Amino acid sequence: MYAIDTTHDPERTSWVETANASDTDFPIQNLPFGRFRTAGSADALQIGVAIGDQILDLRTAGLIFTDDMNALMAAPTVERRALRRKLSDGLSAGSSQQAAWEKALVPQSACELGVPCRIGDYTDFYVGIHHATAVGKLFRPDNPLLPNYKWVPIGYHGRASSIVPHGTSIRRPKGQTAGAKQPGFGPSQRLDLELELGFLVGKGNALGTSVAITEAEEHLFGVTLFNDWSARDIQAWEYQPLGPFLAKNFGSTISPWIVTMEALAPFRAPFAHPASDPQPLPYLDAAANREQGSLDIQLEVLLQTAAMREAGLAPVTISRSNAAQASYWTPAQLIAHHTVNGCNLQPGDLLGSGTLSGPAREQAGSLLEATLGGKEPLVLPNGERRTFLQDGDTLSLSGYCERPGARRIGFGPCAGTILPSV
Amino acid sequence: MYAIDTTHDPERTSWVETANASDTDFPIQNLPFGRFRTAGSADALQIGVAIGDQILDLRTAGLIFTDDMNALMAAPTVERRALRRKLSDGLSAGSSQQAAWEKALVPQSACELGVPCRIGDYTDFYVGIHHATAVGKLFRPDNPLLPNYKWVPIGYHGRASSIVPHGTSIRRPKGQTAGAKQPGFGPSQRLDLELELGFLVGKGNALGTSVAITEAEEHLFGVTLFNDWSARDIQAWEYQPLGPFLAKNFGSTISPWIVTMEALAPFRAPFAHPASDPQPLPYLDAAANREQGSLDIQLEVLLQTAAMREAGLAPVTISRSNAAQASYWTPAQLIAHHTVNGCNLQPGDLLGSGTLSGPAREQAGSLLEATLGGKEPLVLPNGERRTFLQDGDTLSLSGYCERPGARRIGFGPCAGTILPSV
Repeated sequence: MYAIDTTHDPERTSWVETANASDTDFPIQNLPFGRFRTAGSADALQIGVAIGDQILDLRTAGLIFTDDMNALMAAPTVERRALRRKLSDGLSAGSSQQAAWEKALVPQSACELGVPCRIGDYTDFYVGIHHATAVGKLFRPDNPLLPNYKWVPIGYHGRASSIVPHGTSIRRPKGQTAGAKQPGFGPSQRLDLELELGFLVGKGNALGTSVAITEAEEHLFGVTLFNDWSARDIQAWEYQPLGPFLAKNFGSTISPWIVTMEALAPFRAPFAHPASDPQPLPYLDAAANREQGSLDIQLEVLLQTAAMREAGLAPVTISRSNAAQASYWTPAQLIAHHTVNGCNLQPGDLLGSGTLSGPAREQAGSLLEATLGGKEPLVLPNGERRTFLQDGDTLSLSGYCERPGARRIGFGPCAGTILPSV
Repeated sequence: MYAIDTTHDPERTSWVETANASDTDFPIQNLPFGRFRTAGSADALQIGVAIGDQILDLRTAGLIFTDDMNALMAAPTVERRALRRKLSDGLSAGSSQQAAWEKALVPQSACELGVPCRIGDYTDFYVGIHHATAVGKLFRPDNPLLPNYKWVPIGYHGRASSIVPHGTSIRRPKGQTAGAKQPGFGPSQRLDLELELGFLVGKGNALGTSVAITEAEEHLFGVTLFNDWSARDIQAWEYQPLGPFLAKNFGSTISPWIVTMEALAPFRAPFAHPASDPQPLPYLDAAANREQGSLDIQLEVLLQTAAMREAGLAPVTISRSNAAQASYWTPAQLIAHHTVNGCNLQPGDLLGSGTLSGPAREQAGSLLEATLGGKEPLVLPNGERRTFLQDGDTLSLSGYCERPGARRIGFGPCAGTILPSV
């Protein structure tokens, strides 16, 4: 776990004025890392930190000597904390760095943001117990949760090549679907989102070694929003016996700013299961994890249809959830489980949380749940109805942390628009 | 498909004398690509081509100007063929290149071979219909093949970070297994191999585009052996509902030499299903694929236990199979299927075939099948018995192609030894 220090002081303000606005995602208490280039250029991506509506270019500011985010992520925790302190102090109102660092600021509006690091391997977990229960209910009304769920942090491997940054349009996939005499083939008719967090690995571990749960957070760099777009009709036909494949790997959207574990220190929550649930096996259990293992992150899903956009209507929130409430397993448990067999994690690897739905339908992290498998459409304020996503729909995820006594921090944008099949 | 040309002429011999031995895997008709360094050094891996018991260092020979195998793999087919012709002509007996290229030869025995390219994403398919049937029978005697099997080339994502080259020892994984009151935890007791081929992607495709089956082989660079080590007891407990995870990602062994699609041109076979099987959907069907889509590769599994090694006994063949006979789908169909939803493949991506078992038990590509789920042990020549792999066992895969009128070519070594859990 990460101690709370002066970098979290809610009274601290920045000489970057927009960082002091009450509604910014990026006050001086956040300082998330990302990769950017001048919009429209073909420049290599540079490492920057978001502050208000600006980006501090870390190399120009003289703070790092690399463009390799993965190398920065792999740095020992003590170095990463030192960099955070340097950033926080230098960006503070009254800092003597202001004159020098002002030259290293670039407006976010002038930049294009990339996938925040090189993602070697991507694993998707299934920690959302309300999601697993709701989806299980659609298939097995009497026995929604499988017997392994409360013992094994269920996960599977995903596709890294098709992870795209915020703002990238998503082409509706084609594929096989179940049919009476023979399978159907064509554009997916049940295109869905999945509201997830992305946990990014910092320090790696060698093949054949395991990371103890007490050490696990040393291997976590930070957190993003993550939309694991899913084609439910393709998934239903292909997924037995080896799991989802083409239903998922046509595109996944990651938010461009990595909110560090250090920034999240004030927003930790207990990992609390009902007493009737089994005790986790020893490799998944530790006092610190029980007390503070979860992340108290507020999550929202917003939809803007093409018709809404044309009518000048703002995106509408279709779901609200909370990561701590939605999750049966903590990030530290995911790291411990992933490596218990000796599997090697590498800096920049992505662990998706799985869909983070709350227990109620208005907290659903997917349309599959929100519409009860497509049976009860959502009705939007302009009268449109949605079971699954239509071409032209823009889907956004949003995340933020707020607590009494702490400065609110946010995750920035994570949106994509559906393009028709070709 | 690839035309047969003078580079396949069985009469062609090399000035590298060991390439002319009848039992070499690497005659001048083969010319597989790999990455090597001086054994024990920390040098960067260099690109070479195996010829007899030597490696031709391609950069020293002046043939390439990169150490990036993935860049070489991404080259257009016409360039790759030109390089093959240059290699074949220059290594031919009587070539004027001999004097210059002799200086670029390194003995294989002095080298350490790496994973042959940078593997971005790894997908494992399930094309072995006899394997799918035999494994299905263990769980569902009346209905071994699922309804989607003959329509969908079933595949799932694997872990790229834990793919290791030939010769790397494999640490027995620990994990959860099914239990009566609560799960067990400890070293896997049902550690198995999977006899597979690895298909390596050459030219990639952009996200949102599909590769037509008629173009698919333009995107294939070549083929390796691949052992997808599997912990059956971990797999049985964890795999529902999202597929295998920790049961597979503790290590997979790839052979170090990529036998190119050009080298395999004389060893193509029809893709022939019984008339009672469904016609593949149009995106998986093409005349050239029906006529020549399969690869006629002989495969063997060899086992040497610690006791055999101590007694000076050679490895014993425990299974013999054939890729064309074992496979329900062709490599071209895997490429077409993988991209039909717009998923992007990148140079160096690995597509595992899945376990390539023949219909008989002595053709089993896994111990799960060979021992009927651990019920009937193999009896080895020294009297030892094996259901699953024991610590100290060395497991080797072997592959070669031979046909009347063609020179036999082989795949080189693909072995690993089981280390005890720690």
